[in-house]
Amino acid sequence: MDNNQLIQEKVSQATAILNEFDIDLWLTFVRETSLSPDPTLELILGMDMVWHSAFLLSRDGQHKAIVGYYDAENVRQTGAYSQVIGYHQGIGESLRTLLRDEDPQQLAVNYSTADVAADGLSHGMYLVLQQILDGTPYSGRLVSGERLAAALRGRKSSIEVARVRQAVHTTQALFDEVDQFARPGMTQREIADFVHRRIDEMRLGYAWDKPYNPIVTCGPHSAIGHAAPGDVVLEQGHTLHLDMGVRENDYCADLQRMWYVLEDGESAAPVEVQRAFDVVFGALRAGEAALRPGVPGWKVDEVARRHVVENGYDEYMHGFGHLLGRVAHDGATVLAPRWERYQGVCELPVEAGNIFTLELHVIVPDRGIMSLEEDVLVTEDGVEYLSDPQSELRYIRPR
Amino acid sequence: MDNNQLIQEKVSQATAILNEFDIDLWLTFVRETSLSPDPTLELILGMDMVWHSAFLLSRDGQHKAIVGYYDAENVRQTGAYSQVIGYHQGIGESLRTLLRDEDPQQLAVNYSTADVAADGLSHGMYLVLQQILDGTPYSGRLVSGERLAAALRGRKSSIEVARVRQAVHTTQALFDEVDQFARPGMTQREIADFVHRRIDEMRLGYAWDKPYNPIVTCGPHSAIGHAAPGDVVLEQGHTLHLDMGVRENDYCADLQRMWYVLEDGESAAPVEVQRAFDVVFGALRAGEAALRPGVPGWKVDEVARRHVVENGYDEYMHGFGHLLGRVAHDGATVLAPRWERYQGVCELPVEAGNIFTLELHVIVPDRGIMSLEEDVLVTEDGVEYLSDPQSELRYIRPR
Repeated sequence: MDNNQLIQEKVSQATAILNEFDIDLWLTFVRETSLSPDPTLELILGMDMVWHSAFLLSRDGQHKAIVGYYDAENVRQTGAYSQVIGYHQGIGESLRTLLRDEDPQQLAVNYSTADVAADGLSHGMYLVLQQILDGTPYSGRLVSGERLAAALRGRKSSIEVARVRQAVHTTQALFDEVDQFARPGMTQREIADFVHRRIDEMRLGYAWDKPYNPIVTCGPHSAIGHAAPGDVVLEQGHTLHLDMGVRENDYCADLQRMWYVLEDGESAAPVEVQRAFDVVFGALRAGEAALRPGVPGWKVDEVARRHVVENGYDEYMHGFGHLLGRVAHDGATVLAPRWERYQGVCELPVEAGNIFTLELHVIVPDRGIMSLEEDVLVTEDGVEYLSDPQSELRYIRPR
Repeated sequence: MDNNQLIQEKVSQATAILNEFDIDLWLTFVRETSLSPDPTLELILGMDMVWHSAFLLSRDGQHKAIVGYYDAENVRQTGAYSQVIGYHQGIGESLRTLLRDEDPQQLAVNYSTADVAADGLSHGMYLVLQQILDGTPYSGRLVSGERLAAALRGRKSSIEVARVRQAVHTTQALFDEVDQFARPGMTQREIADFVHRRIDEMRLGYAWDKPYNPIVTCGPHSAIGHAAPGDVVLEQGHTLHLDMGVRENDYCADLQRMWYVLEDGESAAPVEVQRAFDVVFGALRAGEAALRPGVPGWKVDEVARRHVVENGYDEYMHGFGHLLGRVAHDGATVLAPRWERYQGVCELPVEAGNIFTLELHVIVPDRGIMSLEEDVLVTEDGVEYLSDPQSELRYIRPR
């Protein structure tokens, strides 16, 4: 099965990453993951666990799992673990025994102050783990697995790239449908309802919360940000903006597209609308040119941000880009300024295999927002677009 | 809106619970909740947050939130917070200021070694919080909010009970459709595919992972536990068992139903099949009779377990019941034995307003599993069934 192949691919990638970072053992320790998921688990297992479960990835490639006996057979069937131990009453003794056998010098666990995707160990489970390890040497050998998690999640495998590419393709086709559907006089909600109906008909998922996907911004009177589509009406002379992404086969797209609603008699957008488009498009291109392996994320943001400000617009109050994968905000490295809330992740270097969004906006007074977003794959020597970048404003003509 | 009403209902319930447990302030501290959800957040907010966000519920009922400015308007619209602060670059200063104003003597946060539903604070976010509180008196005033979370989640409000009741109703109707659909010669997978098609057509969700919902157990050769339906064929003379629940309007059902496939010429199940049904049904009734407010969970399990063992069957190697709500395993109190993996939650007392599953199984050699599960609401003086309990074996007749 494709899913098992993906899990096997990621788990064998983890073996290489453990060796690269010189860590002996990487423990993912979870329980009731439908309530309390660990982002790493979906990469190395791909299913929910009910009882306390331990997944031990080893630098020698002999990966082991200790899980409730009801879950053991499902874990075996992934083909990713050389040993799966199913327990009945409690995990403590099995885990201590296995650690004694492996005797790791460093035991990486999933916590991180900076990277949410590397921070799947709850504080309560951290305390449970300390209780289990009490009196063993391993309680003193716990280290943060954040570099491991960032590498494993951030460096997309071939199956992962193919899946994001497909989600991008589907999302772009939906934008084309919006071309045909949207007309002046419609509300934000009517446009969002249309998109929802189509996504549901295709039995696809949403890259983020459905009520805010798509975000639909019509003209100058819509709230900007993560707002739910409401009763604002699409009017001639205004911009229309959609921020949207499907989740298809567990992987996401995250794209923004721009329209201008022509006035009667107009055949092109007014100069200030066109100029805003050109500046946003230019800033995306400038940022893209700075995006290559080894560059810290904040430097990419800085190039795009400078382009916006030097052209006389206010700077955007968010990051220029984020990783994209199983979720829209896929953890670790961000292309974002060195603000408090980005500390620890905006300094991380871009790596080949990363898939980033590139996005920013400016405001056109009395017209609305101008905001674009593309999805790109970082290669060894630059960038490959997964989306067909919007290089021209799209027009909506009154009927 | 119904959802905002539900959030307001739960948040005002939280005010009463803070007073009951004599805690000044309850902090839910999260970031990127689509990757790292806190189970408490869905009760007190009902949407995802992107940046670092703090929700402070106070015993005086003046609840406050500090969130990224893009998310602020959505939080205001819940109507549950008297103040919503939207920040631009970082949450630290606003959070310290608000805590100085409130000056709580105890600051409850969401960690728990025993209760996964009360353990939404990641270890990394615990460390971030310690950094923010460093040098203030509040770093020394953190306490586990597990009693608050268990009470808020476990005591279902009227809207929550109505929603579970609806999910149970829908799930029961699906079992009736299986009556019509299932025939000897079908595989587990065919039966599961039928259920999936129906749930997807109704645009409903799954109370747990779709690949294991329904669990379909056919005769003596199916794996028991959380196994995905496979190629085992439903045969005459065997039992058929489904464990299934829809998620409807954010609330879940979790039910098990039993069929026997009649042999040619048979008009009833063989005596050993009927006897197993009677013992399982009797054990559920015995457990139900022990279920009332104030009783610790393990004592309820003990009554049901004893009924099974005294009738000569092996004891079931799981708990007799769990809470049910937004997820199938809804945290806190379990009706389960005092095994290591249930420590800390099987001792908790049953409360009025709790919704429990009651479930257990025995094995009938050469025939298959016999397993039932019902959903019940605990009232002030006993139990109200939300499901129509299966009191007779259902039959599948060969065509």
